[in-house]
Amino acid sequence: MVLVGIDVGGTQIKAGLVTRDGRLISHIIENTKTKLGYKAVLEQMNEIILALAKENLVDVKDISAVGIGVPGTTSPDGVVYFANNLGWENKALVNDFGKLCQLPVFIENDASMAAMGELMVGSLKGVKNGILITLGTGLGSGILLDGKIFSGSHGIGRQAGHMKVGENFYECTCGANGCLETFASATALVKYYKHIKNKQQATKDIQVNTAEITAKEIMKLARLGDAIAEKSVERLIHYLGIGIANLINILDPEIISLGGGLAKAGDQLMIPLRESVYNQLYDKKRFFTRLSIAKLENDAGMIGSAMFACENNNK
Amino acid sequence: MVLVGIDVGGTQIKAGLVTRDGRLISHIIENTKTKLGYKAVLEQMNEIILALAKENLVDVKDISAVGIGVPGTTSPDGVVYFANNLGWENKALVNDFGKLCQLPVFIENDASMAAMGELMVGSLKGVKNGILITLGTGLGSGILLDGKIFSGSHGIGRQAGHMKVGENFYECTCGANGCLETFASATALVKYYKHIKNKQQATKDIQVNTAEITAKEIMKLARLGDAIAEKSVERLIHYLGIGIANLINILDPEIISLGGGLAKAGDQLMIPLRESVYNQLYDKKRFFTRLSIAKLENDAGMIGSAMFACENNNK
Repeated sequence: MVLVGIDVGGTQIKAGLVTRDGRLISHIIENTKTKLGYKAVLEQMNEIILALAKENLVDVKDISAVGIGVPGTTSPDGVVYFANNLGWENKALVNDFGKLCQLPVFIENDASMAAMGELMVGSLKGVKNGILITLGTGLGSGILLDGKIFSGSHGIGRQAGHMKVGENFYECTCGANGCLETFASATALVKYYKHIKNKQQATKDIQVNTAEITAKEIMKLARLGDAIAEKSVERLIHYLGIGIANLINILDPEIISLGGGLAKAGDQLMIPLRESVYNQLYDKKRFFTRLSIAKLENDAGMIGSAMFACENNNK
Repeated sequence: MVLVGIDVGGTQIKAGLVTRDGRLISHIIENTKTKLGYKAVLEQMNEIILALAKENLVDVKDISAVGIGVPGTTSPDGVVYFANNLGWENKALVNDFGKLCQLPVFIENDASMAAMGELMVGSLKGVKNGILITLGTGLGSGILLDGKIFSGSHGIGRQAGHMKVGENFYECTCGANGCLETFASATALVKYYKHIKNKQQATKDIQVNTAEITAKEIMKLARLGDAIAEKSVERLIHYLGIGIANLINILDPEIISLGGGLAKAGDQLMIPLRESVYNQLYDKKRFFTRLSIAKLENDAGMIGSAMFACENNNK
């Protein structure tokens, strides 16, 4: 018996066959047929399951359950409330996809699924209370409490990226101002860098094309001593420190793990981040929460979704 | 069999005899002998228990357990990490007071205890996930998850008052800038009102003595149309809305209940507050969390402490 874990994003679907102990056997990545609508994406996911089974000589009947991580809010009874990147609202995904694939289906938010993956076989292994923060286009967060995914009473919690932590020069995609992800994400870093670059002259010896610059390049420029890049990275770390300290002041977890592209910067991020968090803690003498880097990278969503399905299917 | 619930503050000790179903039979309020030190306060609490027993013709042996709500952080194994208003740090309260009173002792943070009281017999009755916010000198918060007090992995969570939500013109007592309680508490309201009053002339027809003004008076002035008072109250509500929306975006509870002196303003606070929270929500179509006013007022801490002791003593 194996499981299928699907990480369905607005751009890509990642689907994998996963063993009960969280090993990714095989996976398929395809561009999501987002524009063709909800039904087309469901059919695409079903075809991927069949292809995975065929490629790996697995009978579809031997797949115990399917877990799907959705980039949005989901209800405890299997409805996708809202997933803006997919254009889905109030979709009965568990019911609809269950009918199509004829397998037990379980859904949750994608960041929660990634946290579940890290809990089972990654940086949060053995942890009761932990948080995974993903620094990508936005700032995603998955919260584990008492060894289980926590998303609140109605499935719409753990949106740490939309915690307001100050006033910003641009609005969040959610319509509000001051969301953490507008200060601390790859998008936020690029926007702030360009914002300052437009105002000031860069140091003369480093020439960059700001129109195309990425967060990774800004991190590199900061390492090379570019003043604006340094300032941009410092600002991101300052606000990320506030966001993490807020989470510690409220949830006091054992560990907060950082994933996503920006976390690859390693010590460049983690050493000043630790200091920034410390400065914002209520009880500085008791900085008990460990800060670490996530382990599973792009596989976390697939593995976590499969593990979530496994756990819930056995209930 | 009865229980004793003690709410020990830096200024006052409130202690009550409470039945197993959360009824406050009798209580004593005394000024805390804070300046005489830790041992003196323990002796004072013990004498109050003896007095309560005597007054109510209860044998001390018939007291099942004692619960103490402490204004600070406590460890899961009964140590007070830090309670600045009492001047206590690293005090083995459960052990020390247990030896003195010869009864089972259980401790938790005072705001958590008040939330427990509201859960058992007040505004949070029947709730699984709920938050009590107390708007007093500071902003206290007690979090209930899955019907139990939640204070994190090390007992230092649920400090919503120290969530950073912006930049403020004065520093928090914790040493940081931008803590929610510096925007939304009785102290914050008075400080901001005086701050603006110092800069501007008040409307001519209302004369106030700002040196002695209280939060209650500012709320009243706002109702009477005083422009500076109105602006001060609006600012408090704006930031309280941000803080509450942050809690909803992260914890998505069934209900958030407001207690403390400022909550007595009722609709003057609650109607604009609901709008302020709405404006900051990530998913505005799903404003599921109810906002309400706490019921038990000053008794919440005593009742909650007793109920907490009852629950833990029966484990």
